[in-house]
Amino acid sequence: MADNLVENAPPGEAYETDVIIIGAGPCGLFAVFELGLLNIKAHVVDILDKPGGQCAELYPEKPILDIPAIKSITGDQLTKQLLDQIEPFEPAFHLNEMAVGLEKLDNGKWKVQTDLGTTIAAPVICIAAGGGSFQPKKPPIPGVDDFEGQSVFYAVRQRDAFKGKSIVIAGGGDSALDWTLNLQPIAEKITLIHRRPDFRAAPDSVDKMKALVEAGKIDFHVAQIKELNGESGQIESVSVESKEDGAYDIACNTLLAFYGLTMKLGPIADFGLNLVENRIEVDTEKFETSAPGIFCIGDMAHYPGKLKLILSGFHESALMSHGAFHYVFPDKKLKFQHTTSAKDLQAQVSGN
Amino acid sequence: MADNLVENAPPGEAYETDVIIIGAGPCGLFAVFELGLLNIKAHVVDILDKPGGQCAELYPEKPILDIPAIKSITGDQLTKQLLDQIEPFEPAFHLNEMAVGLEKLDNGKWKVQTDLGTTIAAPVICIAAGGGSFQPKKPPIPGVDDFEGQSVFYAVRQRDAFKGKSIVIAGGGDSALDWTLNLQPIAEKITLIHRRPDFRAAPDSVDKMKALVEAGKIDFHVAQIKELNGESGQIESVSVESKEDGAYDIACNTLLAFYGLTMKLGPIADFGLNLVENRIEVDTEKFETSAPGIFCIGDMAHYPGKLKLILSGFHESALMSHGAFHYVFPDKKLKFQHTTSAKDLQAQVSGN
Repeated sequence: MADNLVENAPPGEAYETDVIIIGAGPCGLFAVFELGLLNIKAHVVDILDKPGGQCAELYPEKPILDIPAIKSITGDQLTKQLLDQIEPFEPAFHLNEMAVGLEKLDNGKWKVQTDLGTTIAAPVICIAAGGGSFQPKKPPIPGVDDFEGQSVFYAVRQRDAFKGKSIVIAGGGDSALDWTLNLQPIAEKITLIHRRPDFRAAPDSVDKMKALVEAGKIDFHVAQIKELNGESGQIESVSVESKEDGAYDIACNTLLAFYGLTMKLGPIADFGLNLVENRIEVDTEKFETSAPGIFCIGDMAHYPGKLKLILSGFHESALMSHGAFHYVFPDKKLKFQHTTSAKDLQAQVSGN
Repeated sequence: MADNLVENAPPGEAYETDVIIIGAGPCGLFAVFELGLLNIKAHVVDILDKPGGQCAELYPEKPILDIPAIKSITGDQLTKQLLDQIEPFEPAFHLNEMAVGLEKLDNGKWKVQTDLGTTIAAPVICIAAGGGSFQPKKPPIPGVDDFEGQSVFYAVRQRDAFKGKSIVIAGGGDSALDWTLNLQPIAEKITLIHRRPDFRAAPDSVDKMKALVEAGKIDFHVAQIKELNGESGQIESVSVESKEDGAYDIACNTLLAFYGLTMKLGPIADFGLNLVENRIEVDTEKFETSAPGIFCIGDMAHYPGKLKLILSGFHESALMSHGAFHYVFPDKKLKFQHTTSAKDLQAQVSGN
C-alpha cells in the first residue's frame, strides 16, 4: 500500500462545505489547490482507501512521462507531490466511501450521501471520478449473491470485523496477499486459495506468506473455487477443484474474494446529468454539466477534443474553480491573480 | 543571463519542418514535447536570446506556485526542466529572431520569415507568443528616430559591431550594466548614464561597474539625456542634464539606450487572423485560429473562459498537437496513447 496517508473525516456524520469533490485522483486533488487559491474550501470523497485514484491503484510504480516540466514520475510520487501542494488548504477527505446519492436541498445547495451514511452539503459539486468507481469484480461462482455482504466480502472495510473468523481468501494479487498477512494475527484460521502457484503481488509479500505456510500458521491451496456451501447467507465451506488433488471442500465461515477491480460509472449514472458514451457532457468555459453548480473534470468529462490526459484535468480544475466561485460567493467579484505577483496568494499557499 | 543555453540554428537560411512554433516560453516549449509524442518535428522562433519567454525575462528568480505537482519553482528552473523534457525531440531553435512575415505557399504550406532573413516552411504554425514580442521601449528623446539603427541602438545583436566605438550607454537595469561590462574591453570609450545613483541590476554587476569607474576605465554620470546631436543619422554627442552639474554634452559616436522592454503583439497582428482584444481567437477543440493550419496556444489565445495560466497552455499544447497531426500526416490515423502504457512512446521520450 502507498504511504500517501491523509487524515480521514469520520464517516456517518453530516458535513457542510463549499465544494464536494468526488474523486481523489490527480484532478480531484489539484482541484483542491485551484479552489483554495480562490478561498474556496473542499471535501474530497473517494471509494479507494487512499488518495491518487488510478495513479495509486493502477500504476503506482509506473513512470508517467507527460506531466509538464517533470521528465518522469510514478503515480505514487505524483500523488505525494499533489498532496504536498494542496496541504495548506486543509481539504477534508472521506476515503473508503462511495458517493451514492445526490439531492437538491430547499436552500439551493446539493447534498451528497455516501454508502457509509455520511452526508455533505455544498453549493457546488465537482465530479473528478476518472473512469468511474473502482469496484471489485464479482467472482464467477454460482449463487455467490446469496452470501454477499453477510459472509462473503470483496473488500475489507474494518479489519476488526474479521477477528476470530475462519477465513478463505481467494486471489493472487496484492489485495489477497496483503489481507492474508494483515488478518493472520487476528483470524482463527486463514486459507489462501489461488488458481496458479505464482502471484501478481509484491515479491516481499509473497515471501512473507510462504514463510507463514512453512510455519504452519496459514494454509495455501492451488485450486479454484467452484461452489459455496451454507444457508441463509452463512457460508460453511467452499468446494474447490485442484489439478493435483481433484475436488474437495474447505471449511470456513468467511470468504474474502479478491478477483481484481473494475471501473464502473456507478451511482453517478443516476445523478440526472447529460451523458455521452458513459461520460458527462460539460462546456469548455467552466466545465459545468447540464446541472447548474455541478461540474465535471478529468477523464469523466466529455467535450469536443477531450483527451484523457492528467494535464488536461489540471486545466479543467482551474477553469472549474472560477466557475465555482460564483456559486460559492454570489456577491463577490472574482479578481484574477498570478501566484508570482499576488502577495495574498503567496501567503495562502505557504500557509501564513 | 540564464544559463538555459540551447544550440541556435544559423540565421538567414531556408528551413523546412512540420510545425513552426512562434514563442519559446513554457507553452511553446511544451508544445515541442506534445508534438514529439506524435512524431511531429518542430522549429521554435523567439525574439529573446534564450528560451523561457516571460518566465526567463520577467521573473527568472520569482517562485511560481501553481505548476501542478510542483510546490514552488522559479521561472528559470521551470524553463530548465521543460528543456530537459523536450530534449529527446531535438527541436531547432531560432532565437534572437522575430517572426515578421507570413505567407501561404502554392504547395499549401505556410512560410514564416524572420527579421534576420531566415525562412521556415511547414504545414502548421503554432503561435505561442504569450503577451507578444518583447520590444525595447523607445527613449523619450526628441528626434531619436533619425539615428535609430545607424548610431543609436536598443539592443546588442552582435557584440563585434561595437568594437572601437565611443559609446554612451543609458539605463539602470541588467541590460545596461551587462553591456557596460561586456563592451568595455572592446570599446574605445564607455560612458554609463543613469538618472539615479542606484540601480535595478544584479548587485554583483553594479560592484563590477563601480570598480571599472574607480580604475578610470569607464565614466559614470547621474544625468538624463535631453537631446541627441549629429547629422545624417550619425550621433556626435548627447546633451544631458544633471541635478548637480546642470546641462552639458558628452561626446560619443554610438548610443545604446536600455529603457526596458514592453510587450507588443507585433507583426502577428498583420497575419490576418481573427483578433479579440489583441488576442487571437481559437476554438477549444484544437486551439486552431481562423486560418486553417495556424494554431494559437498560451496567453495569446482567446476563447470563452480563458485564463492566462501556464497550466492552461500545457493543455492547449496537447490538443493543438492532435489538431496539427492531421495537417502533418493527412493520410495517417491518430492513435491516442498514454505514456504509462505505450512502449514506443517510452522509447521516444527516453531517446532510444
